[in-house]
Amino acid sequence: MKIQRISDALSIKRTVDGGTNEQLLAVKAIVENVKLDGDAAVKRYTERFDGVVLDSLLVTLDEIDEAYADMEDEMLAIIQEAASNIRSYHEQQLRPSWMTTAENGTILGQKVTPLDSVGVYVPGGTAAYPSSVLMNVIPAQVAGVERIVMVSPPGKNGKVPAAVLVAADMAGVKEIYKVGGAQAIAALAYGTETIKPVDKITGPGNIYVALAKREVYGDVDIDMIAGPSEIAILADSTARANEVAADLLSQAEHDERACSVLVTTCEELAQKVLVEVERQLVELPRRDIAAKAIENFGAIYIAADLNEAVETINQIAPEHLEIITENPMELLGRIRHAGAIFIGRYSSEPVGDYFAGTNHVLPTNGTARFSSPLSVEDFQKKSSVIVYSETALKENGQKIAAFARLEGLEAHARAIEARFK
Amino acid sequence: MKIQRISDALSIKRTVDGGTNEQLLAVKAIVENVKLDGDAAVKRYTERFDGVVLDSLLVTLDEIDEAYADMEDEMLAIIQEAASNIRSYHEQQLRPSWMTTAENGTILGQKVTPLDSVGVYVPGGTAAYPSSVLMNVIPAQVAGVERIVMVSPPGKNGKVPAAVLVAADMAGVKEIYKVGGAQAIAALAYGTETIKPVDKITGPGNIYVALAKREVYGDVDIDMIAGPSEIAILADSTARANEVAADLLSQAEHDERACSVLVTTCEELAQKVLVEVERQLVELPRRDIAAKAIENFGAIYIAADLNEAVETINQIAPEHLEIITENPMELLGRIRHAGAIFIGRYSSEPVGDYFAGTNHVLPTNGTARFSSPLSVEDFQKKSSVIVYSETALKENGQKIAAFARLEGLEAHARAIEARFK
Repeated sequence: MKIQRISDALSIKRTVDGGTNEQLLAVKAIVENVKLDGDAAVKRYTERFDGVVLDSLLVTLDEIDEAYADMEDEMLAIIQEAASNIRSYHEQQLRPSWMTTAENGTILGQKVTPLDSVGVYVPGGTAAYPSSVLMNVIPAQVAGVERIVMVSPPGKNGKVPAAVLVAADMAGVKEIYKVGGAQAIAALAYGTETIKPVDKITGPGNIYVALAKREVYGDVDIDMIAGPSEIAILADSTARANEVAADLLSQAEHDERACSVLVTTCEELAQKVLVEVERQLVELPRRDIAAKAIENFGAIYIAADLNEAVETINQIAPEHLEIITENPMELLGRIRHAGAIFIGRYSSEPVGDYFAGTNHVLPTNGTARFSSPLSVEDFQKKSSVIVYSETALKENGQKIAAFARLEGLEAHARAIEARFK
Repeated sequence: MKIQRISDALSIKRTVDGGTNEQLLAVKAIVENVKLDGDAAVKRYTERFDGVVLDSLLVTLDEIDEAYADMEDEMLAIIQEAASNIRSYHEQQLRPSWMTTAENGTILGQKVTPLDSVGVYVPGGTAAYPSSVLMNVIPAQVAGVERIVMVSPPGKNGKVPAAVLVAADMAGVKEIYKVGGAQAIAALAYGTETIKPVDKITGPGNIYVALAKREVYGDVDIDMIAGPSEIAILADSTARANEVAADLLSQAEHDERACSVLVTTCEELAQKVLVEVERQLVELPRRDIAAKAIENFGAIYIAADLNEAVETINQIAPEHLEIITENPMELLGRIRHAGAIFIGRYSSEPVGDYFAGTNHVLPTNGTARFSSPLSVEDFQKKSSVIVYSETALKENGQKIAAFARLEGLEAHARAIEARFK
């Protein structure tokens, strides 16, 4: 990490990992075999990749009970409160079907319908991510999706981590399978004897999961393929260096390729943050990961003024943006591109990762220019509704026929005219 | 086309054309060369594929004036009225930014922002498609997109068809380039000396355009890759066979791979429609195309009752659905999957293609299970907004830190705690 002039800020160029050819071929083979052999293939891959032989893929009610017993009451209450906050926020996103009516009898509208079924992938590995369960399941549930399936790879003990099971149960998931990797994505997309297929698959995963999602996309819908986490902090001289540094490190600990950027109008802050990052870094349990991220994708930029700083942020289009300035609210209207905007000193980014209620699934890698946070709308779709009365068609039929003929589509014109023969 | 029992209805299996390897390699080369050589490459490809040598890619104001002069006044008025209807409908889709406030100072919300820039592709070839211009440009404009660029291949005379230019001008496009094919998509995605890059590309095109859109996806956003057009008609004994047949043929004339399906509870209607389709087909200018579509992708299914008919429609998830029954409105709530729903005898599908105001860019190939018509929302994106006060963070900070530690993310916990040191 070093201090740079703003002109260097846009040289940061990052790409989403596309996987190797070997990985892609492996994924294609797994998907094909799950299509052919169903449960048998899924169990074979689970034995090979997770090292467990499973009789049954379905998580039982006993396993859920056991998971609750494994958790401390205080932690259960925190997860419950987070779930409740996430639910409240996402309920604000619900939009009704609507229509307009005209005196000639025309009715036009949009009918909003939830997806029939959704599959949520929850990654395994050394840590458990109950927050990921809440962030993917709750918007689907608020949207009205009837069937929400969760899949997560079993650990060596044949179990899914307690915190993940508890979060799923609290969010209302009734169907959980101990399957991970590309085989889980294939099972969700094409179905097996045990797992009925779904219409959309969401949730993060490793490169095999990402490639499998790309592979099945089109047959089912998927959410975005997320890149490594990013934070940009826009700060002036009122920001505290230790807080800014701590927030930069909170993203850096996610991934060696995570990106932490400070854009500031204050050279003194820049110098202090540089020192603080080094000081705090060595005390972190995940310092090896965070150090690589800071070294390769960390940067501090000095802007001449807030205008230049804001323009730089818009060009970066970061996943997470913190604004820690004297009057942060007055900058909100000028931020055009950011996944989530955290305003003021007390809105530290982890507030949004876990608890405030906003979604932590956000556009990365500059895609905030055209993409949005995961939302209720990702689990609904719309149908246009058109009602034309006899009067309306009499009024407009000849115009419609003329337009069709202009495009050389005679059968379109005749379909209209058939009504008046 | 033949009459079949409902059990055969779901055997219709269609796939989107993925292109050949040769086509894919050609597209990759074109994209690469436009990236390297900019305008020079674009002009070379225009000479090779469109057979025209262009000095300037930009359509001039003189060319626009000429286009208006080429059109009949009556037709201009019809396009203008269609544009106005499309604008009114899409304005209903606008949703404001919103926020919630809590007494502890927390503010949560969603900020809605238009995309900065959008490129609309309009296909060339023998026919001109001004309706496609309106359907892609107007939602972007209603969304608030500042820069809307249109590209369309020049004809042998070096010009874009008058109807296309007029529609673009009426919709408010200020920047039109005479470029088509994969080279147009590459220019929009990566920019050339003349054409500045855009953030999203929409609009239909041939297989080279579709492959190029896939190729640039991720660097910019794209709309859906549409498959051939589809119509399903749900009709009972109250429907008129000649009208049903005309509507089936109006889709069939689009493409040899278009799909026209009737699902009816009335065997007599089925027999009559079969006869009518054959009778009307031979009189169509595009009978060669329509005949192939009807032969390969046309079908009439007899359902035992309306329940079975509705369920079949939901399984097909058609792009266009017409409901021509005694009480069509009472079925609307039971239709879960369809791109656009046309209700009653006078709501013939071409009403929506050109004039009513709804969008004619719709999900094909069963993707109405999870996709929506093109809308204003496709040209906007959202940012989450989080304001936590000191009080709010004091209330909740320890819970957030505990949740972070449960996931093994110590730096997240410390970022919160840094505020209270």
